[in-house]
Amino acid sequence: MLEELKNEVYAANMRLVGAGLVTLTWGNASGFDRSSGLMVIKPSGVDYGAMKPSDMVVVDLSGKTVEGGLRPSSDTPTHLEFYRRFDGVGGAVHTHSPEATAWAQAARAIPCRGTTHADGFCGPVPVTRFLTPEEVEEAYELNTGRAVAELFTGRDPLATPAALVAGHGPFTWGETPAKAVDNAVALEAVAKMARLMELLDRPGGAPPSLPEHVARKHFMRKHGPNAYYGQK
Amino acid sequence: MLEELKNEVYAANMRLVGAGLVTLTWGNASGFDRSSGLMVIKPSGVDYGAMKPSDMVVVDLSGKTVEGGLRPSSDTPTHLEFYRRFDGVGGAVHTHSPEATAWAQAARAIPCRGTTHADGFCGPVPVTRFLTPEEVEEAYELNTGRAVAELFTGRDPLATPAALVAGHGPFTWGETPAKAVDNAVALEAVAKMARLMELLDRPGGAPPSLPEHVARKHFMRKHGPNAYYGQK
Amino acid sequence: MLEELKNEVYAANMRLVGAGLVTLTWGNASGFDRSSGLMVIKPSGVDYGAMKPSDMVVVDLSGKTVEGGLRPSSDTPTHLEFYRRFDGVGGAVHTHSPEATAWAQAARAIPCRGTTHADGFCGPVPVTRFLTPEEVEEAYELNTGRAVAELFTGRDPLATPAALVAGHGPFTWGETPAKAVDNAVALEAVAKMARLMELLDRPGGAPPSLPEHVARKHFMRKHGPNAYYGQK
Amino acid sequence: MLEELKNEVYAANMRLVGAGLVTLTWGNASGFDRSSGLMVIKPSGVDYGAMKPSDMVVVDLSGKTVEGGLRPSSDTPTHLEFYRRFDGVGGAVHTHSPEATAWAQAARAIPCRGTTHADGFCGPVPVTRFLTPEEVEEAYELNTGRAVAELFTGRDPLATPAALVAGHGPFTWGETPAKAVDNAVALEAVAKMARLMELLDRPGGAPPSLPEHVARKHFMRKHGPNAYYGQK
Repeated sequence: MLEELKNEVYAANMRLVGAGLVTLTWGNASGFDRSSGLMVIKPSGVDYGAMKPSDMVVVDLSGKTVEGGLRPSSDTPTHLEFYRRFDGVGGAVHTHSPEATAWAQAARAIPCRGTTHADGFCGPVPVTRFLTPEEVEEAYELNTGRAVAELFTGRDPLATPAALVAGHGPFTWGETPAKAVDNAVALEAVAKMARLMELLDRPGGAPPSLPEHVARKHFMRKHGPNAYYGQK
Repeated sequence: MLEELKNEVYAANMRLVGAGLVTLTWGNASGFDRSSGLMVIKPSGVDYGAMKPSDMVVVDLSGKTVEGGLRPSSDTPTHLEFYRRFDGVGGAVHTHSPEATAWAQAARAIPCRGTTHADGFCGPVPVTRFLTPEEVEEAYELNTGRAVAELFTGRDPLATPAALVAGHGPFTWGETPAKAVDNAVALEAVAKMARLMELLDRPGGAPPSLPEHVARKHFMRKHGPNAYYGQK
Repeated sequence: MLEELKNEVYAANMRLVGAGLVTLTWGNASGFDRSSGLMVIKPSGVDYGAMKPSDMVVVDLSGKTVEGGLRPSSDTPTHLEFYRRFDGVGGAVHTHSPEATAWAQAARAIPCRGTTHADGFCGPVPVTRFLTPEEVEEAYELNTGRAVAELFTGRDPLATPAALVAGHGPFTWGETPAKAVDNAVALEAVAKMARLMELLDRPGGAPPSLPEHVARKHFMRKHGPNAYYGQK
Repeated sequence: MLEELKNEVYAANMRLVGAGLVTLTWGNASGFDRSSGLMVIKPSGVDYGAMKPSDMVVVDLSGKTVEGGLRPSSDTPTHLEFYRRFDGVGGAVHTHSPEATAWAQAARAIPCRGTTHADGFCGPVPVTRFLTPEEVEEAYELNTGRAVAELFTGRDPLATPAALVAGHGPFTWGETPAKAVDNAVALEAVAKMARLMELLDRPGGAPPSLPEHVARKHFMRKHGPNAYYGQK
């Protein structure tokens, strides 16, 4: 069942490790098959070195395991909320990568101060509010997904394919699991550069954000209707 | 004698190197066999590349070498104090990993500001007081272990499997040598993220700690009676 | 056509990856054949792992593709401006390497505070102004090259083979593509050391710049008429 | 001539690269044969990948090349001054490793705030004054060595086997070339931890230095007459 997607999701999980975004077992990637409404996701707390594509777990939109002998990631309800709420999203990733997590722990959005950032995220990477005690109690992981989705009311989740959960860490997504990993790699780089830059800021010195016209140009040359970055 | 434990302790020491936590020979891991009351520990100041499982030294609870041709780690009395004082602990690790050591040198506990931290350490990672000149003179390494144990009066050392020795560096422990290494890896990641986060803090901005309900939830979903993270 | 230069440009692009200066596809290197007036440059947005020397694109000074089945880098007009304006330059590199990009995002020149810096860049590494909305609209990449060239009015671009584009990132160049890569590696190291140093500065403590006589000496012993660093 | 020492010096230079202390060709190691009064040193500006033990250059105490077809390191007169002034020193190293160089560029000694530091350097790692214009003009590299030696009037260079040259970078030494490399690795780690720690310092919080009795104990358990760290 969904063998190709399992391979993609497995490869996405392994790339997270190779890219240095994962400590111990702290990370997971999933993929969504929109035609069947089924999600493939990494099993929970399994050692990456021992993991195989066939260990990937198939889950339906209600969270029920449809195939697989292992428990799905404990973040499964968060991933499912993304697929329910974000049209066109086919892959999602969660890590505790240090640079992005530092912003999440500081409960700050990552400001857009560079073209590298504008290229990939079209504006600040937003941060959620903290969940209420009731929300945590009731359905922690589902409400985490809802808090992320809240941020995208009137905002295109494919233009800004990432968010930080306050006190927790980053989530990214994309059209495919591979794209979601690319976005996780880009987010970590952008988070690092923004941190380094803040240290270098001098009062009255640098502008508080990249001039809007430069940010827009960068995003559009890569993603706009007349994009000319990359191959046709 | 204790061949399996020697293999585990050897593997734990080598993993410290592979995880980038050790500079030169600055680190050691041990394991404890509670039934015989014997500890297996890395020999002192030996090059990791040349070390073999059979070089591990067996020591009794009084610190006397029971087997092995090399001197045990100079931190042996500190490790022994952990095994005497902390029920259920079967492995211990000491490193000078840079991020955790920086907090130790600043003589500060690592505040719990993220779920990554809450998952593994259930609250701040505490820091010892400095030893008095008399304590240093009398029995430096033993008193170091006592200063760590002091911090756990009324606190569960397996819920918070780590402490910083002021001006020195981190110690971690766990049910097995492998778990103690996992905790050393997690501690270094947590220490790094806490440092990065402090730089990003803005006056009046972020809350001084992760909301308690979020921290508790994270710890409980991994370690509580109804834990659902990881495999059964 | 220009097979040797294609090999050099390919090798230069691959070395950027090996040196850790490139995230995903964020970087490009080019080479210029002054006798024919043709530039060889990396194709746009292509995965480094799949790239071959024969994928390099040949472009004339007007920006027209002369040979190659792929689109040239979207930064092509910037590179061409360097070859038109900087005598003796035969290679150019653009990356989003994090340390240099952080200075660019902070819109600050990198001050010359060390001999390491003086050796390679003979003074501060300058930063451009931000382009105007009209300049971005009209010809973004070309005007980026012009803003860099502006900085070198009355300054030797081979003595200071690097500049930062405000809000964007670093460009470096040299007599050959390989030299341009060396300069990109050196720039990243210099940018990092300058950042670390700023953190260590104490009010009233360190001098605001390396004494001029030390900076000059270092540059001259490597590059002056009586240079004695390196082999004859 | 001195084939064994050439092998040691070659190995020391290659280890600097492996330890990540060298960018491009920025580093050199030497060894001294006290019986013949001859020094073996890396050739200047040569690519590490192409270097062989037989490329090492033999120089006498006056700086004259005695054997070898390549120019010796441009820092040769600095190394020679160490061997003339520091009894018992048989190896020396210079790098531009980023953490130690940052302190050198900030013209600050590295304070002794941790046992890791005390173990290896027995007090702050000192920094030279800046050379005068006359000293630079007259004999830059020789006077650099003299400025370092000045710092050790009444201080044991084997207890503190390192110094920073203001605005330039670190030099380390030891009984052998291998020990000098160990000290360069330790210095970089210590410099990094001291920087991280400064960021974590809070006004009124941490003490300005490691308590003297702890620092002394650490140094003595490794290096004192009754040292018990390491093997006999």
